[in-house]
Amino acid sequence: MRYGIIGTGGVARTIADKLVALGHEVTLGSRGKDNEAAAAWVGQAGASGHHGTFAEAAEFGEVLLNATPGTVAVEALRAAGAEHLAGKLLIDLSNPLVFGPDGGLTLDPVNTDSVGERIQREFPEALVVKTLNTLTAPLMVDPARLEGEHNLFVAGNDADAKARTVALLGSFGWPAEWVIDLGDITGARAMEMMMPFWIRLMGAFGTAEFNYAFKRAR
Amino acid sequence: MRYGIIGTGGVARTIADKLVALGHEVTLGSRGKDNEAAAAWVGQAGASGHHGTFAEAAEFGEVLLNATPGTVAVEALRAAGAEHLAGKLLIDLSNPLVFGPDGGLTLDPVNTDSVGERIQREFPEALVVKTLNTLTAPLMVDPARLEGEHNLFVAGNDADAKARTVALLGSFGWPAEWVIDLGDITGARAMEMMMPFWIRLMGAFGTAEFNYAFKRAR
Repeated sequence: MRYGIIGTGGVARTIADKLVALGHEVTLGSRGKDNEAAAAWVGQAGASGHHGTFAEAAEFGEVLLNATPGTVAVEALRAAGAEHLAGKLLIDLSNPLVFGPDGGLTLDPVNTDSVGERIQREFPEALVVKTLNTLTAPLMVDPARLEGEHNLFVAGNDADAKARTVALLGSFGWPAEWVIDLGDITGARAMEMMMPFWIRLMGAFGTAEFNYAFKRAR
Repeated sequence: MRYGIIGTGGVARTIADKLVALGHEVTLGSRGKDNEAAAAWVGQAGASGHHGTFAEAAEFGEVLLNATPGTVAVEALRAAGAEHLAGKLLIDLSNPLVFGPDGGLTLDPVNTDSVGERIQREFPEALVVKTLNTLTAPLMVDPARLEGEHNLFVAGNDADAKARTVALLGSFGWPAEWVIDLGDITGARAMEMMMPFWIRLMGAFGTAEFNYAFKRAR
């Protein structure tokens, strides 16, 4: 399968490495062609790793992943071109973190909107699924780094797009029953609003390598 | 010990029942004296259960708990009287849920502020600790309803006040090592912002009887 990844940061390259290791073709997309992180990644990824503009990555991919920061995601996807997103599964991994007035990390948008919803509104023909924004990159592609069951979440308007996302996550090592469906794309609000909690927990635990699990009544 | 609980709803009465069962004296506080829920609770609580105004409950308690909705908490505590809060541990259990423009539940305040912080700012002489707002009332006082370790969180500016809160939670059945310290009272933002996620999870699980646990790297 051909994947286009919008973004070239740590999350983008971690996902790209995993996709190449699974036998897929990947194009990392950046604003301009002179992106050192992307060039370095292509140098070590082998023949299945490519680099291009946002538009080239979006055109290349049969499935797309947004790994830009949530604050610039819509703008980056506009540059990618609505015509390259239409009809495609578009997996959004982003969090819209901004520094607040007191120096702490806050979210924008928040509460009555989310990046996932903004992307879906701006590109109504894309099949947007929010997932993977709730944990650190190494765990995204290697859940066995933690012992036992822990959980991911998906939100999106299209059931088939969510099922395809769950299948992709399965190839990353996530059993389908570990992935909790939070409903339509408005569930992205809930998922993005966990980020302040995640940051506090990272401070309390002294590591980013942790994840949510749940105890439920039986 | 004498406890004053601000509020007479389900959470207030669940906590009050547990405190009476543990041998404490409890006054439930309401806006007016003609509160049917409080009167009914006093009728079944026995000699250790009392009812009064917000001010009477706050004056009565050596330790206070705010179990009013987060949207009215500051107003209720003003009615309780700053002079009855000064120097006391004030445990805030509230969430500021309001219906948003699209009918979904949202938070006010959110993101750059929280109810916990508002209470601490408004009553600087109170020792405010945020906890217990992250799970359903029956679990607050009976964590053994779920199997194995699951977690609570505390946030507050005063280390001794947090330690006393952890001890109280211990008497409810929560081992101290299950209680995660999220730092100063600004951690209340993170804890309150989990509420939209909690509501989505309740929908996905089909029960409110669930709680967070964590897997961590070792």
